[in-house]
Amino acid sequence: MRNVLFIMCDQLRWDHLGCAGHPFLRTPNIDALAARGVRFDQAYVQSGICGPSRMSFYTGRYVASHGATHNRVPLSVGEVTLGWHLRESGRTLALAGKTHMLPDTHGMKRLLLDGQDELAVLLREGWFSLVDRHDGHHAETDSAYAHWLRRQGYDGADPWTEHVIAVTAPDGSVRNGWKMRNARLPARVAEEHSETAYTTDMALRFIEEQGEQPWVLHLSYVKPHWPYIAPAPYHAMYGPEETLPVQRHEAERGPDAHPVLREFQAEEVAQSFQRDECIAAVRPTYQGLIAQLDAHLGRVWELLERMGRWEDTLVVFTSDHGDYLGDHWLGEKELFHDCIQRVPMILALPGGVAGRVESRFVEAVDIAPTILDALGLPAAEHVMEGRSLLPLLRGEERAEWRGFAISELDWTFRGARRRLGLPTGQHRAFMIRDRDWKYVHWTSGMPPQLFDLRADPEEFHDLGRAPEQEAVRARMREALWDWASRLKCRTTLTWAEAEFRTDRHKAVGVFYGEW
Amino acid sequence: MRNVLFIMCDQLRWDHLGCAGHPFLRTPNIDALAARGVRFDQAYVQSGICGPSRMSFYTGRYVASHGATHNRVPLSVGEVTLGWHLRESGRTLALAGKTHMLPDTHGMKRLLLDGQDELAVLLREGWFSLVDRHDGHHAETDSAYAHWLRRQGYDGADPWTEHVIAVTAPDGSVRNGWKMRNARLPARVAEEHSETAYTTDMALRFIEEQGEQPWVLHLSYVKPHWPYIAPAPYHAMYGPEETLPVQRHEAERGPDAHPVLREFQAEEVAQSFQRDECIAAVRPTYQGLIAQLDAHLGRVWELLERMGRWEDTLVVFTSDHGDYLGDHWLGEKELFHDCIQRVPMILALPGGVAGRVESRFVEAVDIAPTILDALGLPAAEHVMEGRSLLPLLRGEERAEWRGFAISELDWTFRGARRRLGLPTGQHRAFMIRDRDWKYVHWTSGMPPQLFDLRADPEEFHDLGRAPEQEAVRARMREALWDWASRLKCRTTLTWAEAEFRTDRHKAVGVFYGEW
Repeated sequence: MRNVLFIMCDQLRWDHLGCAGHPFLRTPNIDALAARGVRFDQAYVQSGICGPSRMSFYTGRYVASHGATHNRVPLSVGEVTLGWHLRESGRTLALAGKTHMLPDTHGMKRLLLDGQDELAVLLREGWFSLVDRHDGHHAETDSAYAHWLRRQGYDGADPWTEHVIAVTAPDGSVRNGWKMRNARLPARVAEEHSETAYTTDMALRFIEEQGEQPWVLHLSYVKPHWPYIAPAPYHAMYGPEETLPVQRHEAERGPDAHPVLREFQAEEVAQSFQRDECIAAVRPTYQGLIAQLDAHLGRVWELLERMGRWEDTLVVFTSDHGDYLGDHWLGEKELFHDCIQRVPMILALPGGVAGRVESRFVEAVDIAPTILDALGLPAAEHVMEGRSLLPLLRGEERAEWRGFAISELDWTFRGARRRLGLPTGQHRAFMIRDRDWKYVHWTSGMPPQLFDLRADPEEFHDLGRAPEQEAVRARMREALWDWASRLKCRTTLTWAEAEFRTDRHKAVGVFYGEW
Repeated sequence: MRNVLFIMCDQLRWDHLGCAGHPFLRTPNIDALAARGVRFDQAYVQSGICGPSRMSFYTGRYVASHGATHNRVPLSVGEVTLGWHLRESGRTLALAGKTHMLPDTHGMKRLLLDGQDELAVLLREGWFSLVDRHDGHHAETDSAYAHWLRRQGYDGADPWTEHVIAVTAPDGSVRNGWKMRNARLPARVAEEHSETAYTTDMALRFIEEQGEQPWVLHLSYVKPHWPYIAPAPYHAMYGPEETLPVQRHEAERGPDAHPVLREFQAEEVAQSFQRDECIAAVRPTYQGLIAQLDAHLGRVWELLERMGRWEDTLVVFTSDHGDYLGDHWLGEKELFHDCIQRVPMILALPGGVAGRVESRFVEAVDIAPTILDALGLPAAEHVMEGRSLLPLLRGEERAEWRGFAISELDWTFRGARRRLGLPTGQHRAFMIRDRDWKYVHWTSGMPPQLFDLRADPEEFHDLGRAPEQEAVRARMREALWDWASRLKCRTTLTWAEAEFRTDRHKAVGVFYGEW
């Protein structure tokens, strides 16, 4: 294997793919990738928010280990990412699109690394080398994409806000794309100038430019993440009747609802998504954005085909988390329902098995070890907590595989925390999900949650305080402790070095213990 | 409070002080400190080995958080120590003696910090500013202590090995101080040139030189740690009949002994200490070394008195862990018996309560927060996991205090691990001790340990596999999980910053969720 194309979508639910069984949404190119490789049907992220989930993808470590617990939390300068591991072997991790990497300004200042030299730039980017970074979701005045848009004729101080997420009403007036009531209207940007098209262009150019040189590219789309605005024709490709039925139940907002869930249901985004008209406006456009992504992935597949890259390139397709879209009376993300934590994950390995659906649990932390393994590079097993998926891609029936998936949340940064009367600090939650149960442990005095996934696959009925299920909860807490006890905190020595330093005292002139 | 004198001994057991009830050993100066302040009778370290225990003292963090899990494991360049916290406030943490700080050479190289500039030196020293560093236990050819010894007339390439830990036999011959059979013989160094005297001299000079300038000094002795060699007259101050009875029981080495305990009992140091003659040789000298320490602390107290420093100096006296000395058929340290994990801890706060014995659980991680609190500096609550002891030093009866102590072990680096057939990796153990029970969770397939401290305070009878105690074990495992769930992984933002960033999306131009 010479190359890796690591494709990530932002906020793409596991169930919004044709190959995953969506009854209306058509994703022929993503489906074609699944036909070339393995589609993991039980793939979980380590956090239901962009930043921490991505840092788990990039470090191969659980959130409790890498510490970037929320979108607003920098990754410590002491953490090591896939980009560094590749650099150690003389390779480069190129980026086209989003990472949500926040630099550790305190740590960099402490270590006098806050200059403008190459190292400081690499650290700020989490050891990615930029083809083009585009994190999206924010006004853009001076970014490469903003300048490119202006060259395409989109004037204005902030062409993203004024064109890419602005829409045109039937009366010709311009409306605000942040307002979800406008989601069915077309963006004021031509499809070929939208974010998805732009990021694809950057990736295609990069791949072409490499020629026969090996490369590792992270092609990281900002869509179908909000603002839910699609350019024509994708804004109108699906109608409300072609979307999945909303998954919500009165039991979820009764007086016995979990206090944190109740507070998240009180947030503005949840209140909006509790309106049927909001669901009817957003879901079709969300699907349109996915259809657009799929179309542009078709362009990528064509280039791989033309250059012969399918023969020497591992292709990874996944997402950083899902989107509630009104399910469970919620909008946005963060909490632990499957529509957030379970993500699409397809890997196509040249020479590997094709067209397989694999339902063993895989996690975001597995991707970085898989990439190193595919490239034949050292495993960095002293820091990475995931495991290479290559055996599964090769169809090996391994006797032992994990039986659960883990995810975490730091809910310090949400108004929900304040409304519950909790001071700032570190307010955490931990999810463990096995085949039959999903358990969530909340700190800060909050009760646990428990769902019986056999009887209640929709996760409507919280058994977290049901007396008859205490044995299950105790078992799941023990499994969480077992997981926590295996986290890799000793990151400053490789395993080979640890082996070398075992029982070495006499070799270094220390003769304790002799009578 | 203007100054802090943070005194640490190396390998000093909690029960080897006059004020702790030792029936023979006299420590009048340490006892006098206890009379000035609070003696914590249930003080626990976070690791039973020097390096990790000290890193917990210096970072205020549990081993699972700071990651320097063994003596041979560097502290990550991403970790922050008390020395840094003091520097951020314009203060300096001075060092006279030992830290066991190992630089993170991989991390420093990754960040191009492997030069010889001031920052690199500070990082290598864990943000301590050196008065004099003397880690002991190793041959010394080019250290400040070695040069000083030569100036005092101790010739040789390695005056430490040739004089400080060499002994003179009655026939005048020179013998090897590493051999414990020689422990009763006097060192070939005059008392005033021994390590304890030298380190005290460095500290006294530093304190005098500061005059009325405020200071924070870590006075960190390498004794009574092995080699168990004392200069005259301390080598002969106590006889075998004046030592504590050895605590060991046949049940501890029967066929049902814990496999890791059994393998530690097979190590050379344990085999040696299983000889009564070894115990009889070592324990008196170990006591002599403590008596010597006590005498030199008397010199420190005199200087504090003469300079008026008792009025404006917080004095901390503690140890990094204990020493088996033959108890439990073991030598050295690492495992979880109280003779290792429980340490002396005395704090004297000017204006605080005097002569009190406090038996609430305190931990090594509490010392750094206590020092910051005493100096009126920011608490660094986003990284430090201990809590300030000032309320206890002031005699405040706080409603809430911790009900247990935690310690950890990474036993990867011991031959015991290899003899158990385990490959390299991260082989961990976690101790939790409350008033009544001590529970140890072992990873890597090892069974747990459990001791009923009411019925079996000597910790002879391991109930880790006793069927009737499963409920206790389950409760202790849950307490471990609760502890693990509160570890502070989000270290790149202060709590004030986290509060500021809560629900800030609209303030930064992100309007998701509006209908």
